[in-house]
Amino acid sequence: MKPESREVVWRGRLFDVVVERWQGRERELVEHRRSAAVVAFDRAGRLVLVRQLREAVGGRALLELPAGLVDDGEDEVAAARRELAEETGLRGGRWRELRRLQPSPGFLREPLTVFLAEELEEGDRELDDGEDVELVRVPPDEVEALLPELEDAKTLVGVLLALRVRAG
Amino acid sequence: MKPESREVVWRGRLFDVVVERWQGRERELVEHRRSAAVVAFDRAGRLVLVRQLREAVGGRALLELPAGLVDDGEDEVAAARRELAEETGLRGGRWRELRRLQPSPGFLREPLTVFLAEELEEGDRELDDGEDVELVRVPPDEVEALLPELEDAKTLVGVLLALRVRAG
Repeated sequence: MKPESREVVWRGRLFDVVVERWQGRERELVEHRRSAAVVAFDRAGRLVLVRQLREAVGGRALLELPAGLVDDGEDEVAAARRELAEETGLRGGRWRELRRLQPSPGFLREPLTVFLAEELEEGDRELDDGEDVELVRVPPDEVEALLPELEDAKTLVGVLLALRVRAG
Repeated sequence: MKPESREVVWRGRLFDVVVERWQGRERELVEHRRSAAVVAFDRAGRLVLVRQLREAVGGRALLELPAGLVDDGEDEVAAARRELAEETGLRGGRWRELRRLQPSPGFLREPLTVFLAEELEEGDRELDDGEDVELVRVPPDEVEALLPELEDAKTLVGVLLALRVRAG
Protein backbone atom coordinates (compact mmCIF):
# COMPACT_ATOMS: atom_id res chain seq x y z
CA MET A 1 0.00 0.00 0.00
CA LYS A 2 1.05 3.58 -0.65
CA PRO A 3 -0.05 6.94 0.76
CA GLU A 4 -2.10 9.30 -1.43
CA SER A 5 0.21 12.16 -0.56
CA ARG A 6 3.35 12.78 1.42
CA GLU A 7 5.04 15.91 2.72
CA VAL A 8 8.23 16.28 4.74
CA VAL A 9 7.35 18.86 7.40
CA TRP A 10 10.59 18.78 9.44
CA ARG A 11 14.02 17.54 8.39
CA GLY A 12 16.64 16.45 10.95
CA ARG A 13 20.00 14.74 11.04
CA LEU A 14 18.68 11.47 12.48
CA PHE A 15 15.03 11.50 11.46
CA ASP A 16 12.43 13.46 9.48
CA VAL A 17 8.79 14.18 10.27
CA VAL A 18 6.42 13.44 7.39
CA VAL A 19 2.68 13.95 7.05
CA GLU A 20 1.09 11.31 4.82
CA ARG A 21 -2.50 10.93 3.67
CA TRP A 22 -3.81 7.33 3.81
CA GLN A 23 -7.42 6.54 2.84
CA GLY A 24 -8.33 10.18 3.32
CA ARG A 25 -6.78 10.50 6.79
CA GLU A 26 -3.66 12.48 7.66
CA ARG A 27 -0.94 10.70 9.64
CA GLU A 28 2.04 12.32 11.35
CA LEU A 29 5.00 9.93 11.13
CA VAL A 30 8.62 9.96 12.22
CA GLU A 31 10.90 8.52 9.55
CA HIS A 32 14.14 7.26 11.08
CA ARG A 33 17.11 5.62 9.40
CA ARG A 34 17.41 1.82 9.54
CA SER A 35 19.17 0.48 12.60
CA ALA A 36 20.73 -2.78 13.75
CA ALA A 37 21.47 -4.28 17.17
CA VAL A 38 23.32 -7.38 18.44
CA VAL A 39 22.79 -9.79 21.32
CA ALA A 40 26.50 -10.45 21.73
CA PHE A 41 28.12 -13.33 23.64
CA ASP A 42 31.90 -13.51 24.09
CA ARG A 43 33.91 -16.75 24.08
CA ALA A 44 33.33 -17.16 27.83
CA GLY A 45 29.57 -17.13 27.16
CA ARG A 46 29.12 -13.72 28.76
CA LEU A 47 26.42 -11.37 27.40
CA VAL A 48 28.05 -8.07 26.39
CA LEU A 49 25.93 -4.95 26.88
CA VAL A 50 26.67 -1.22 26.82
CA ARG A 51 25.60 1.37 29.34
CA GLN A 52 25.22 4.94 28.13
CA LEU A 53 23.49 8.19 29.04
CA ARG A 54 20.22 8.65 27.18
CA GLU A 55 18.98 12.22 26.88
CA ALA A 56 15.56 10.96 25.75
CA VAL A 57 14.96 9.38 29.16
CA GLY A 58 16.10 12.34 31.22
CA GLY A 59 19.83 11.67 31.02
CA ARG A 60 19.70 8.36 32.86
CA ALA A 61 22.12 5.58 31.89
CA LEU A 62 20.41 2.61 30.24
CA LEU A 63 21.77 -0.88 29.73
CA GLU A 64 21.34 -1.81 26.06
CA LEU A 65 22.43 -4.05 23.22
CA PRO A 66 25.29 -2.64 21.12
CA ALA A 67 23.48 -0.98 18.22
CA GLY A 68 23.67 1.76 15.65
CA LEU A 69 22.49 3.21 12.37
CA VAL A 70 22.77 1.38 9.04
CA ASP A 71 24.63 3.56 6.54
CA ASP A 72 23.25 4.22 3.05
CA GLY A 73 24.06 1.26 0.82
CA GLU A 74 25.16 -0.88 3.78
CA ASP A 75 23.28 -4.04 4.75
CA GLU A 76 22.04 -4.67 8.27
CA VAL A 77 24.48 -7.40 9.25
CA ALA A 78 27.46 -5.36 8.06
CA ALA A 79 26.24 -2.39 10.12
CA ALA A 80 25.74 -4.60 13.18
CA ARG A 81 29.27 -6.06 12.84
CA ARG A 82 30.76 -2.57 12.41
CA GLU A 83 28.91 -1.06 15.38
CA LEU A 84 29.72 -4.05 17.60
CA ALA A 85 33.43 -3.78 16.80
CA GLU A 86 33.44 0.01 17.37
CA GLU A 87 31.59 -0.11 20.68
CA THR A 88 32.99 -3.34 22.18
CA GLY A 89 35.99 -4.49 20.14
CA LEU A 90 34.26 -7.84 19.57
CA ARG A 91 34.42 -9.37 16.09
CA GLY A 92 34.23 -12.67 14.24
CA GLY A 93 31.96 -15.28 15.81
CA ARG A 94 28.81 -17.04 14.60
CA TRP A 95 25.92 -14.80 13.53
CA ARG A 96 22.20 -15.25 12.88
CA GLU A 97 19.25 -12.89 12.48
CA LEU A 98 16.92 -13.03 15.49
CA ARG A 99 14.10 -10.66 14.51
CA ARG A 100 13.04 -7.65 12.46
CA LEU A 101 11.34 -5.25 14.84
CA GLN A 102 9.13 -2.17 14.75
CA PRO A 103 9.93 -0.16 17.90
CA SER A 104 6.72 1.93 17.91
CA PRO A 105 4.60 1.21 14.82
CA GLY A 106 1.81 3.69 15.65
CA PHE A 107 3.88 6.60 14.33
CA LEU A 108 7.54 5.55 13.96
CA ARG A 109 9.05 4.19 10.74
CA GLU A 110 12.31 2.72 12.03
CA PRO A 111 13.14 -0.72 10.66
CA LEU A 112 15.36 -2.38 13.27
CA THR A 113 17.05 -5.76 12.87
CA VAL A 114 18.31 -7.68 15.92
CA PHE A 115 21.07 -10.27 15.50
CA LEU A 116 22.46 -12.98 17.75
CA ALA A 117 26.28 -13.31 17.70
CA GLU A 118 28.11 -16.02 19.65
CA GLU A 119 31.74 -17.03 20.26
CA LEU A 120 32.92 -13.49 19.51
CA GLU A 121 36.64 -12.73 19.58
CA GLU A 122 38.26 -9.87 21.47
CA GLY A 123 39.75 -6.83 19.72
CA ASP A 124 40.24 -3.08 20.21
CA ARG A 125 37.34 -0.66 20.60
CA GLU A 126 37.09 2.34 18.24
CA LEU A 127 34.69 4.74 19.92
CA ASP A 128 33.71 7.91 18.06
CA ASP A 129 34.87 11.20 19.49
CA GLY A 130 32.76 12.06 22.52
CA GLU A 131 31.11 8.62 22.74
CA ASP A 132 30.95 7.56 26.37
CA VAL A 133 29.97 3.91 26.45
CA GLU A 134 30.63 1.59 29.39
CA LEU A 135 30.99 -2.13 28.61
CA VAL A 136 29.13 -4.56 30.87
CA ARG A 137 29.81 -8.31 30.67
CA VAL A 138 27.19 -10.53 32.25
CA PRO A 139 28.13 -14.15 33.11
CA PRO A 140 25.71 -16.76 31.71
CA ASP A 141 24.16 -17.59 35.09
CA GLU A 142 23.44 -13.91 35.86
CA VAL A 143 21.47 -13.02 32.73
CA GLU A 144 18.11 -14.02 34.23
CA ALA A 145 18.70 -11.82 37.29
CA LEU A 146 19.45 -8.87 35.02
CA LEU A 147 16.09 -8.90 33.23
CA PRO A 148 14.20 -6.67 35.72
CA GLU A 149 16.75 -3.90 35.13
CA LEU A 150 16.17 -3.74 31.36
CA GLU A 151 13.91 -0.97 30.01
CA ASP A 152 15.02 -0.69 26.40
CA ALA A 153 12.58 -2.56 24.15
CA LYS A 154 15.09 -3.92 21.60
CA THR A 155 17.32 -5.15 24.44
CA LEU A 156 14.49 -6.98 26.18
CA VAL A 157 13.28 -8.56 22.93
CA GLY A 158 16.80 -9.58 21.95
CA VAL A 159 17.81 -11.03 25.31
CA LEU A 160 14.49 -12.86 25.84
CA LEU A 161 14.63 -14.38 22.33
CA ALA A 162 18.31 -15.29 22.72
CA LEU A 163 17.62 -17.08 26.02
CA ARG A 164 14.98 -19.17 24.23
CA VAL A 165 17.24 -19.95 21.26
CA ARG A 166 20.17 -20.92 23.49
CA ALA A 167 18.02 -22.98 25.85
CA GLY A 168 16.40 -24.94 23.04
CA MET B 1 19.87 15.53 34.94
CA LYS B 2 18.50 18.40 32.89
CA PRO B 3 19.34 19.86 29.50
CA GLU B 4 21.08 23.24 29.32
CA SER B 5 18.56 24.45 26.76
CA ARG B 6 15.44 23.20 25.05
CA GLU B 7 13.53 24.33 21.97
CA VAL B 8 10.38 22.88 20.40
CA VAL B 9 11.13 22.89 16.66
CA TRP B 10 7.98 21.11 15.41
CA ARG B 11 4.66 20.69 17.15
CA GLY B 12 2.24 17.89 16.19
CA ARG B 13 -0.96 16.29 17.48
CA LEU B 14 0.69 13.11 18.71
CA PHE B 15 4.29 14.17 19.27
CA ASP B 16 6.62 17.19 19.20
CA VAL B 17 10.22 17.44 18.00
CA VAL B 18 12.53 19.18 20.46
CA VAL B 19 16.20 20.11 20.21
CA GLU B 20 17.95 19.97 23.59
CA ARG B 21 21.52 20.82 24.53
CA TRP B 22 23.14 18.31 26.93
CA GLN B 23 26.76 18.78 28.04
CA GLY B 24 27.36 21.08 25.09
CA ARG B 25 25.93 18.71 22.47
CA GLU B 26 22.67 19.19 20.57
CA ARG B 27 20.20 16.30 20.54
CA GLU B 28 17.14 15.97 18.30
CA LEU B 29 14.40 14.19 20.24
CA VAL B 30 10.82 13.11 19.59
CA GLU B 31 8.60 13.77 22.57
CA HIS B 32 5.53 11.54 22.50
CA ARG B 33 2.66 11.30 24.96
CA ARG B 34 2.71 8.50 27.56
CA SER B 35 1.19 5.23 26.39
CA ALA B 36 -0.03 1.99 27.93
CA ALA B 37 -0.50 -1.56 26.58
CA VAL B 38 -2.02 -4.79 27.92
CA VAL B 39 -1.15 -8.48 27.56
CA ALA B 40 -4.78 -9.56 27.88
CA PHE B 41 -6.06 -13.07 28.62
CA ASP B 42 -9.78 -13.84 28.57
CA ARG B 43 -11.50 -16.30 30.94
CA ALA B 44 -10.75 -19.19 28.55
CA GLY B 45 -7.02 -18.35 28.87
CA ARG B 46 -6.82 -17.03 25.31
CA LEU B 47 -4.41 -14.20 24.52
CA VAL B 48 -6.36 -11.31 22.96
CA LEU B 49 -4.52 -9.27 20.34
CA VAL B 50 -5.59 -6.66 17.79
CA ARG B 51 -4.68 -6.51 14.13
CA GLN B 52 -4.65 -3.10 12.47
CA LEU B 53 -3.18 -1.30 9.46
CA ARG B 54 -0.05 0.63 10.34
CA GLU B 55 0.86 3.45 7.98
CA ALA B 56 4.33 3.68 9.56
CA VAL B 57 5.20 0.21 8.23
CA GLY B 58 3.88 0.73 4.72
CA GLY B 59 0.22 0.08 5.46
CA ARG B 60 0.72 -3.53 6.50
CA ALA B 61 -1.49 -5.04 9.24
CA LEU B 62 0.42 -5.80 12.44
CA LEU B 63 -0.64 -8.03 15.30
CA GLU B 64 -0.26 -6.06 18.55
CA LEU B 65 -1.26 -5.73 22.17
CA PRO B 66 -4.30 -3.53 22.77
CA ALA B 67 -2.76 -0.13 23.58
CA GLY B 68 -3.28 3.58 23.48
CA LEU B 69 -2.37 7.02 24.76
CA VAL B 70 -2.62 8.04 28.40
CA ASP B 71 -4.76 11.17 28.74
CA ASP B 72 -3.56 14.21 30.68
CA GLY B 73 -4.18 13.62 34.38
CA GLU B 74 -4.98 9.93 33.82
CA ASP B 75 -2.80 7.20 35.29
CA GLU B 76 -1.36 4.38 33.20
CA VAL B 77 -3.52 1.55 34.49
CA ALA B 78 -6.71 3.56 34.01
CA ALA B 79 -5.67 4.31 30.43
CA ALA B 80 -4.86 0.65 29.80
CA ARG B 81 -8.26 -0.45 31.18
CA ARG B 82 -10.07 2.18 29.10
CA GLU B 83 -8.25 1.31 25.86
CA LEU B 84 -8.70 -2.43 26.42
CA ALA B 85 -12.46 -2.00 26.94
CA GLU B 86 -12.80 0.25 23.87
CA GLU B 87 -10.80 -2.01 21.53
CA THR B 88 -11.85 -5.45 22.78
CA GLY B 89 -14.82 -5.10 25.17
CA LEU B 90 -12.81 -6.91 27.86
CA ARG B 91 -12.97 -5.54 31.43
CA GLY B 92 -12.54 -6.55 35.07
CA GLY B 93 -9.98 -9.28 35.69
CA ARG B 94 -6.75 -9.39 37.65
CA TRP B 95 -4.12 -6.79 36.74
CA ARG B 96 -0.42 -6.31 37.38
CA GLU B 97 2.31 -4.12 35.90
CA LEU B 98 4.75 -6.11 33.76
CA ARG B 99 7.30 -3.50 32.71
CA ARG B 100 8.02 0.15 31.99
CA LEU B 101 9.59 0.32 28.54
CA GLN B 102 11.51 2.76 26.36
CA PRO B 103 10.64 1.88 22.73
CA SER B 104 13.65 3.63 21.14
CA PRO B 105 15.72 5.49 23.77
CA GLY B 106 18.30 6.89 21.33
CA PHE B 107 15.93 9.69 20.29
CA LEU B 108 12.35 8.88 21.42
CA ARG B 109 10.89 10.07 24.71
CA GLU B 110 7.80 7.82 24.95
CA PRO B 111 7.23 6.29 28.39
CA LEU B 112 5.26 3.08 27.78
CA THR B 113 3.87 0.83 30.52
CA VAL B 114 2.90 -2.77 29.74
CA PHE B 115 0.36 -4.55 31.97
CA LEU B 116 -0.69 -8.18 32.33
CA ALA B 117 -4.45 -8.71 32.76
CA GLU B 118 -5.96 -12.17 33.33
CA GLU B 119 -9.46 -13.63 33.77
CA LEU B 120 -10.97 -10.72 31.84
CA GLU B 121 -14.74 -10.57 31.39
CA GLU B 122 -16.55 -10.03 28.12
CA GLY B 123 -18.35 -6.78 27.26
CA ASP B 124 -19.16 -4.53 24.29
CA ARG B 125 -16.49 -2.85 22.20
CA GLU B 126 -16.57 0.95 21.75
CA LEU B 127 -14.36 1.68 18.78
CA ASP B 128 -13.73 5.31 17.85
CA ASP B 129 -15.10 6.51 14.53
CA GLY B 130 -12.94 5.20 11.73
CA GLU B 131 -11.00 2.77 13.92
CA ASP B 132 -10.64 -0.53 12.08
CA VAL B 133 -9.34 -3.08 14.56
CA GLU B 134 -9.68 -6.85 14.12
CA LEU B 135 -9.73 -8.95 17.31
CA VAL B 136 -7.57 -12.09 17.34
CA ARG B 137 -7.94 -14.65 20.16
CA VAL B 138 -5.06 -17.09 20.50
CA PRO B 139 -5.64 -20.32 22.48
CA PRO B 140 -3.05 -20.96 25.23
CA ASP B 141 -1.30 -23.79 23.38
CA GLU B 142 -0.90 -21.67 20.21
CA VAL B 143 0.86 -18.65 21.72
CA GLU B 144 4.35 -20.12 21.24
CA ALA B 145 3.68 -20.77 17.55
CA LEU B 146 2.58 -17.17 17.09
CA LEU B 147 5.87 -15.63 18.26
CA PRO B 148 7.63 -15.66 14.86
CA GLU B 149 4.81 -13.51 13.42
CA LEU B 150 5.25 -10.68 15.94
CA GLU B 151 7.20 -7.58 14.86
CA ASP B 152 5.94 -4.94 17.28
CA ALA B 153 8.46 -4.46 20.10
CA LYS B 154 5.98 -3.85 22.96
CA THR B 155 3.97 -6.91 21.90
CA LEU B 156 7.03 -9.17 21.84
CA VAL B 157 8.26 -7.89 25.21
CA GLY B 158 4.81 -8.22 26.75
CA VAL B 159 4.06 -11.70 25.43
CA LEU B 160 7.54 -13.07 26.23
CA LEU B 161 7.42 -11.68 29.78
CA ALA B 162 3.84 -12.92 30.29
CA LEU B 163 4.81 -16.44 29.18
CA ARG B 164 7.55 -16.44 31.84
CA VAL B 165 5.27 -15.08 34.57
CA ARG B 166 2.51 -17.59 33.77
CA ALA B 167 4.93 -20.51 33.49
CA GLY B 168 6.62 -19.75 36.80
